[in-house]
Amino acid sequence: MSGFQDGRALQRLLDELGRLPGIGPKSAQRIAYHLLEADAEDARRLADAILEVKQQVHFCPICFNYATREHCDVCDDSSRDTHSICVVSEPRDVSAIERTGSYHGLYHVLGGVISPMDKIGPEQLHVKELLGRLADDSVGEVILATNPDVEGETTATYLSRVIRPLGIEVTRLASGLPVGGDLEYADEVTLGRAIEARRAL
Amino acid sequence: MSGFQDGRALQRLLDELGRLPGIGPKSAQRIAYHLLEADAEDARRLADAILEVKQQVHFCPICFNYATREHCDVCDDSSRDTHSICVVSEPRDVSAIERTGSYHGLYHVLGGVISPMDKIGPEQLHVKELLGRLADDSVGEVILATNPDVEGETTATYLSRVIRPLGIEVTRLASGLPVGGDLEYADEVTLGRAIEARRAL
Repeated sequence: MSGFQDGRALQRLLDELGRLPGIGPKSAQRIAYHLLEADAEDARRLADAILEVKQQVHFCPICFNYATREHCDVCDDSSRDTHSICVVSEPRDVSAIERTGSYHGLYHVLGGVISPMDKIGPEQLHVKELLGRLADDSVGEVILATNPDVEGETTATYLSRVIRPLGIEVTRLASGLPVGGDLEYADEVTLGRAIEARRAL
Repeated sequence: MSGFQDGRALQRLLDELGRLPGIGPKSAQRIAYHLLEADAEDARRLADAILEVKQQVHFCPICFNYATREHCDVCDDSSRDTHSICVVSEPRDVSAIERTGSYHGLYHVLGGVISPMDKIGPEQLHVKELLGRLADDSVGEVILATNPDVEGETTATYLSRVIRPLGIEVTRLASGLPVGGDLEYADEVTLGRAIEARRAL
């Protein structure tokens, strides 16, 4: 609540809302006026939810998905198939795949993709931890579910070369996802079909 | 921060974001992940801005626009033309007209429009306060800038009948605004032209 003195609370809210992805000036204004007209309790619930998500959400120490308890929901779920690990770039990709209902194994979130332009190599990603999880022979398949774009394909190719020598089956999501597209925005049916038709590398 | 125990902070944030106007499930998720990835300080600034706008913004006792000081920015501005009052339904309509730069007078926010279906008559709006402002003969023109829809026209017609006997010129925003549309979403040029070409009732 500090640092606010000039009384232009509405403009400040418009500025903050305008920083959010997909929120232009008109959307920001519509949301700001909605909040002004809403019950104080509704506005407080939103503010609390924003603060809480930052306070309570951390990275799962096993798979690096977002977690609110010690481990993430997937790693905590004993009904999951521990035979396969689906490797994704970001936690949001876990959500996208979970929504398809087509996959019941575990995940591993790399925290990015290999991108020489941005000076991101395997060392900057959670690759070492992935290899650690593959060391005990319980995993039979690794599904490489990075985005079907240049960096995603590069990352998948790299991981495939590292993991196949371990005697573990390595698969890639089926084409059917539009190349150059973004996994996060694929519709459930397309993404589900891509999981079902995943191909060996 | 109370009332939150089950650890599903992310889902709660998605729910709260999904209540905002124009935010569907995909937008909510995009914003939530943006906040998760953002600096804690950025998220806190947004949460603070939401809380502050509720704490600090109240209705101007003169015109019923939103205000953060005693009076709103327009009523506080001694450079405004006090000869004319522009009557609008909601505070957001003040913002829409201010953005055109075509109007330099004062405002009066009714807080709604006459709507028999919703049991809203002149008594439920700030009509009495408007007539009070017109009592001292300093105002020469009242611009009726309610939306060009059924309730807005009804409200304008009612106010015109009440105000004209006071010897004050009553005008209405020019047609040019799409009928049945919403003043808030008009583009600046159209709305500015409509103000310039306002017609006597």
